[in-house]
Amino acid sequence: MDNKSNARDIAMAAWQHLAHGHQSGDFTAYLAMLTEDYTFSMPTGAFRGTHVGRAQAAECYAEIAKSKPNLMYAPPLRVTEMGDTVVIEFEDEGTITDRPYRNRIANSFDVRGSHIAGFREYFGDTDPNVIIALSDGASASPKT
Amino acid sequence: MDNKSNARDIAMAAWQHLAHGHQSGDFTAYLAMLTEDYTFSMPTGAFRGTHVGRAQAAECYAEIAKSKPNLMYAPPLRVTEMGDTVVIEFEDEGTITDRPYRNRIANSFDVRGSHIAGFREYFGDTDPNVIIALSDGASASPKT
Repeated sequence: MDNKSNARDIAMAAWQHLAHGHQSGDFTAYLAMLTEDYTFSMPTGAFRGTHVGRAQAAECYAEIAKSKPNLMYAPPLRVTEMGDTVVIEFEDEGTITDRPYRNRIANSFDVRGSHIAGFREYFGDTDPNVIIALSDGASASPKT
Repeated sequence: MDNKSNARDIAMAAWQHLAHGHQSGDFTAYLAMLTEDYTFSMPTGAFRGTHVGRAQAAECYAEIAKSKPNLMYAPPLRVTEMGDTVVIEFEDEGTITDRPYRNRIANSFDVRGSHIAGFREYFGDTDPNVIIALSDGASASPKT
């Protein structure tokens, strides 16, 4: 029970660090919470697909920072947790590369101790124009 | 506790009916599980966005059936539940309108009694070519 509420607290802290990163471009606090073998799956961008490693994550978020994200994460619509997995559903809105952007998002975190060992991001909206813009921005530097 | 495992069973049954529909085009069993005020959010297609009503859902899945989905849902990667909400993460693969298709998916179900009252679908992969194809297929009949 302690363990369960702990996973939720850790995931919520990580999510708030992600929110901060997507508003400021500074993902330092989020990256500090990741395990060395952090495994992450992204729906779009240069790191679309599944990647392993905190170093890879740092490159991924450096790419995202280049797009000058200025997004506001709305308070979670749902936080669903079981064991070490916590799924946060929410909406975000703002600009990416100065273009208006909004989406529904599901972030699924796997918590290990006080760190995040896994992360899977899902898009609830796939406006083709937005997807193309995100892909174009990303394709400038596909690192993998 | 009983209530919790019950929500999981109902959501899993609904998900299996969805899997069947996405392989056969027959969503009858899924639609039979929905409340009258079923509220659903879709990431793509003619019903991209949020809609309310079992009748709307029937139209939505009739549109999906037209794309001749022949997908296999892999066993869930994660099933995360809390209260009446159950999130199922999985991968699917096959063809839509005879084109190869695969994705990571998160389906979030809100269970009410023995029915599904809410559903939010999220895409873990947004290959631009696939998204454009899905949108084109859908735009033939945007019903709302």
